[in-house]
This record gives sequence, C-alpha cells and structure tokens, in this order.
Amino acid sequence: MSAAHLGTVATAGATIWLTGLSGAGKSTISEALIVRLREAGHRVDILDGDEVRQVLTADLGFSREDRITNVRRIGYVAEVVARNGVLALVPVIAPYAEARDSVRERHEKAGTPFVLIHVATSVEVCAERDVKGLYAKQKAGLMSGLTGVDDPYEDPTNADLRLDTAGRTLDESVDAVWAVLSARGLV
Amino acid sequence: MSAAHLGTVATAGATIWLTGLSGAGKSTISEALIVRLREAGHRVDILDGDEVRQVLTADLGFSREDRITNVRRIGYVAEVVARNGVLALVPVIAPYAEARDSVRERHEKAGTPFVLIHVATSVEVCAERDVKGLYAKQKAGLMSGLTGVDDPYEDPTNADLRLDTAGRTLDESVDAVWAVLSARGLV
Repeated sequence: MSAAHLGTVATAGATIWLTGLSGAGKSTISEALIVRLREAGHRVDILDGDEVRQVLTADLGFSREDRITNVRRIGYVAEVVARNGVLALVPVIAPYAEARDSVRERHEKAGTPFVLIHVATSVEVCAERDVKGLYAKQKAGLMSGLTGVDDPYEDPTNADLRLDTAGRTLDESVDAVWAVLSARGLV
Repeated sequence: MSAAHLGTVATAGATIWLTGLSGAGKSTISEALIVRLREAGHRVDILDGDEVRQVLTADLGFSREDRITNVRRIGYVAEVVARNGVLALVPVIAPYAEARDSVRERHEKAGTPFVLIHVATSVEVCAERDVKGLYAKQKAGLMSGLTGVDDPYEDPTNADLRLDTAGRTLDESVDAVWAVLSARGLV
C-alpha cells in the first residue's frame, strides 16, 4: 500500500501502537482513524503484522522470546517512519510489557512521540466476535498459543488510553483515540 | 537521529542504496548527499548498518544467508520510509546480487522507486584508506570474512551508476549521484 501524500500539513510524527487481543478492534479502529487523519491532512502509514511478517519477522514463531523480538523489530520500523514526520499506526497484539516498554524507551530516547492505546475489549467479547475464527479453533483443540486464552497477555499499566470497544460505536472509539492524540499535540 | 523536516517540498520518496566494499565511500557520499538534499528541501533519512544492527538484525551473523536476510530487512524498512515520501539513503555493503534484486523487486512491485549506486572503489584503494582498520586486521589474521578480500562481493550488473571514487573529489562523486537522481525525476 502506498502512503505517500503530497501537500500534507506539516506535523511531527509519532508511533501510535494499538495493543490488545485478537478481535479486540485494533485494525478496525486503525483503519477508521487513518481515514480521519488523512482527511485532516496528516501523513499516515500502517504497519500491520501480516505485511511485516513477509520479510521482517519471517524467522519468528510464537514463543515469549520470539513475540518480544517481533514487537521490537516492528517498533524499530515504526520509530524510523515516525521520526520522518509520519503518524505510524501499529495494530499489533504486543502481549508482553517488556517488549512494549522497550519500544517506548527507544522512542523516548530519540525524542519521538509514542502513544500506547490499549484496546481492552474483554476476551469474552473477542471470542464472540471471533473475526479470524481463532477462538473457535483453539476451543476445538486445533491450535494453541492464543493470546488471552492459553497464552499470556499482560495488561498495560502505562497506556495512554484504555478503550473497551464493547458498547461503543466505531466512531466513538475513534473519537476517544483522537482525543488522546489531540491532548498530545499530534493532531 | 531525527530526520523530520517541516515545510519541506513535496516529492516522491525513493530508496537510494549505495553498495560497495568497506571504505569505498558509501557513508561519506551519503552524508554529503544528505546535506545537499536537505538544502534543496527534500525529506531525507539514512539507514546505516550500525543503527539497524541494534534491534533489527541483532540476531544475524556474516554467513551468506545472514547477509542476505540483513539486506532484505533493511530493504523493507527503506521501502516503508520511501513510500512515505522520504528519500531513504542506505549505505550498506549488500554483497549478494540475490538480496539486492529481492529488495529491488519488492520496491518495483509496490511502485516505490529504487536506485542502486555501486560505489565501485577498488579493493586496493579501500585497503589503503582502511577507515575502520579492517583490512589490516584481516591481513594480520585477526579477522576473516572481509567482503572483497576473503568473502564474496558480487559486482552489480544492474546498477543505476557505477562510481569509482578514486581520483574524484567528494563533490564530484555527489554530483554523479545527483545526476542519476535528477534523471529519475527524484530531485
């Protein structure tokens, strides 16, 4: 996908990481947020796990160590994109605090804004939605290592926003993220 | 390093990869080129191997396979940066044609310009300069796997420019790269 925009407004970039379980709404919110950010004239790009996995993290599995390495590598790419004046959206689970904190620290050291949005939809609601069919697969014993079910998800204690999408419209969720970005001077 | 620039001219991004031996002049040319590009109002960033190695390629060694993976990962980051309207300079040896071609192909598939500059300074001149002391170390038997000496460097057959820095001033070398970028409509 191409994200180059000509004649955009001048803004500082930032990494906006949406962490949460599969089906929590990370990608859906990111896609709606992108539309709104572009309308407002911002440079925006999205780093999704599927694209990144083709080249950058093709060697990694789903162990704790590999999941941490995965988040660190994506975090590095986001950092480089963000330091070039782009809002880099990252809808990636990132289950371990250690990895999220490591990405945040690198950003802070470089003076590049980092925003952590915890899309905190409960595992029950995520399993009901089951967008990718993973919860059903896990229940049927066809897979294991599903974050929040039989693999850890460490709730962030330092998120800029904790957003439970249950009972909220997509617009309301995007509004909530927008308010955080606005408070940080990013939009 | 921060590369965000406000109020820059609107341009398409591109990856500008400078391949060649250690000491060939890749970084020196990149740094001089950056100054000139910024003066002309372009967004520019540089991805150097040392920075990238901290996070993105910390797991890799110097085998053929690892060197190819290294170039592919850096190529992916450059691609993401370039698609956001930034000129991404990559002064990285990239000894294998397979890896360079793979990076080029991904760019072409995505419609993102890719420029390959072969900084073709001879191994004799590089060894004489020996900026990092690597050629002396290898000669003394203190290291092995030095590209162009006891490790392969596959000369590009598809470079946009073959630039031997011997007998050229730095300004003349930068002029030569600039001419290529200009012909491609990138500056």
